[in-house]
Amino acid sequence: MRIAVDAMGGDFAPRTVIEGALAAADRLSIGITLVGPSDLVEREVHSFKKVRHLNIEIADAPDVIAMGESSLALRRKPRSSIGVAADLVARGEAAAMVTAGNTGAAVLAARMALGMLPGVDRPALATTIPTLGGRAVLLDSGANLECRPSNLVQFAAMGAVYARAILGIGAPRVALLSIGEEETKGTELTREAHRLLKAEREDFVGNLEARDLFSGKADVIVCEGITGNIALKVGEGLVDAVEKLLHRELHRSWAGRLGLRLAVRAFRGFRRRVDYSEYGGAPLLGVSGLCIVGHGRSSAKAIGNAVAMAHRLASGDLIEALAHDLTPTQVG
Amino acid sequence: MRIAVDAMGGDFAPRTVIEGALAAADRLSIGITLVGPSDLVEREVHSFKKVRHLNIEIADAPDVIAMGESSLALRRKPRSSIGVAADLVARGEAAAMVTAGNTGAAVLAARMALGMLPGVDRPALATTIPTLGGRAVLLDSGANLECRPSNLVQFAAMGAVYARAILGIGAPRVALLSIGEEETKGTELTREAHRLLKAEREDFVGNLEARDLFSGKADVIVCEGITGNIALKVGEGLVDAVEKLLHRELHRSWAGRLGLRLAVRAFRGFRRRVDYSEYGGAPLLGVSGLCIVGHGRSSAKAIGNAVAMAHRLASGDLIEALAHDLTPTQVG
Repeated sequence: MRIAVDAMGGDFAPRTVIEGALAAADRLSIGITLVGPSDLVEREVHSFKKVRHLNIEIADAPDVIAMGESSLALRRKPRSSIGVAADLVARGEAAAMVTAGNTGAAVLAARMALGMLPGVDRPALATTIPTLGGRAVLLDSGANLECRPSNLVQFAAMGAVYARAILGIGAPRVALLSIGEEETKGTELTREAHRLLKAEREDFVGNLEARDLFSGKADVIVCEGITGNIALKVGEGLVDAVEKLLHRELHRSWAGRLGLRLAVRAFRGFRRRVDYSEYGGAPLLGVSGLCIVGHGRSSAKAIGNAVAMAHRLASGDLIEALAHDLTPTQVG
Repeated sequence: MRIAVDAMGGDFAPRTVIEGALAAADRLSIGITLVGPSDLVEREVHSFKKVRHLNIEIADAPDVIAMGESSLALRRKPRSSIGVAADLVARGEAAAMVTAGNTGAAVLAARMALGMLPGVDRPALATTIPTLGGRAVLLDSGANLECRPSNLVQFAAMGAVYARAILGIGAPRVALLSIGEEETKGTELTREAHRLLKAEREDFVGNLEARDLFSGKADVIVCEGITGNIALKVGEGLVDAVEKLLHRELHRSWAGRLGLRLAVRAFRGFRRRVDYSEYGGAPLLGVSGLCIVGHGRSSAKAIGNAVAMAHRLASGDLIEALAHDLTPTQVG
């Protein structure tokens, strides 16, 4: 198996991305195609030791789309690393692509190169989150900032397939992230999406309040991309803040210092469960091929885990399962 | 001073609300007008001991608007507890109102009874949040689910006044909660709001990513009500989850059990800083009078703190300061 990695994507690219990709190639014994300006990528690869035995190829992509650029930059830069990586998947030269670059550009590149699965209008980023009971999948976590109610219904269908196939949840419960549990509460979008989900899905358990996101009351949580993205990032930021404040509080007292090492060790156990770098990235569901989008701040470890996720998803039959459950004739 | 308290508002009304209001009347030596069906409220009041010396009045309001009802129920129920409480403030018979009831109905009742300050189209709930550096104010945290860019500019002006007058921050930095730091990122709403804020406010420091909400990078954080509400509730839920998981992790090992009591004590210090019940509620800024909206799950302590907040704000000249800074002639 071969995975295409956008060597230029993310805040610490190319070095950190290449480091993580090389480590994954070694650990998983898979082929990696690094996509970026070939001179630069080649130089970086050779600065690492013990790379000769690895199955590494380089695909030249002289253009780079920066994190702050509009996704439309893809049209002006047909040979961007993100676009070339998507093309490799479309041509079957890679089983999946991984990028920690510009999310908007990744979504557009994947849509253009791979096309959409039948019955899906828009793709969604599916992020696995920890809950008190285990794990859940939140989508969309940022592929589409604004959505229509019918998009959320499609996200529910894709999320349910993902929860069964990847998270191993037999009968996933689907919920809609909203401002109150009552179906009369929320925006125009959530009220109409609630109505549609209730009518179309037996596994729909209603609205989920944001305070219950990590409670384990639902296995598949659907929302508009801006909402999902903000919910996840608030969570990330708060876990950081808790860690800092816990240190500070514990340092205040002599007794605290004694307990510090024990508490920090315990907290680390929890932190691992919310740390995106453990999951590596989120698959873009709904496109006709595998695309994993990593966090912009991905470390080498996070890139390695994103490649491992790509490998795992490509080894299964996720795309086939999605296509099977989403074909319009299945609805109703 | 006299504060009107909606005795029927919140998940644990009327008993818990009345308990908190009585305690605040005692502690602060102020008058409280409890608003609700008089028979019921009177019976509850007399079930508490040592109430005779307190300055308590009851304003009869036979109707109740339930948490799940549309705010339009106010029109069908002109003598609801939430509506009568707002009328008491409008008539000058109370210096402020406090409710932990239906937020939508509270916002509508306050707008109808009190009117808006000149130059403000919509009011905003201003929630104080803890940061690594101290405190910040987030608005709107749920008064308006959907907003226009110009609303966010008015929220910025109100938030800056609030941060100076109430949080004691000399030169507050104003930021816009969005999906990325770059001004090209975000929804149509946030992009246009960014443009307006940049043009109109010298204290605008740009977009704030949700992961930096608790970082202390801004003192006034503006956003649409649905976004603010979800951001805060994710925070609440995560702090709950951290506490449960910390307990669970610590119980796993013998060494953990030893450190448990120390760590939990330390965590409580942090938790107090994010616990809404410590702040009691959020003032509804932009209406021409004081209205404090508490959390639906308010405990007696939270109600007491909301009354204390009402007392503090009514003792200052917040409304005058807002009116002064917001009059349209001041702009530009």
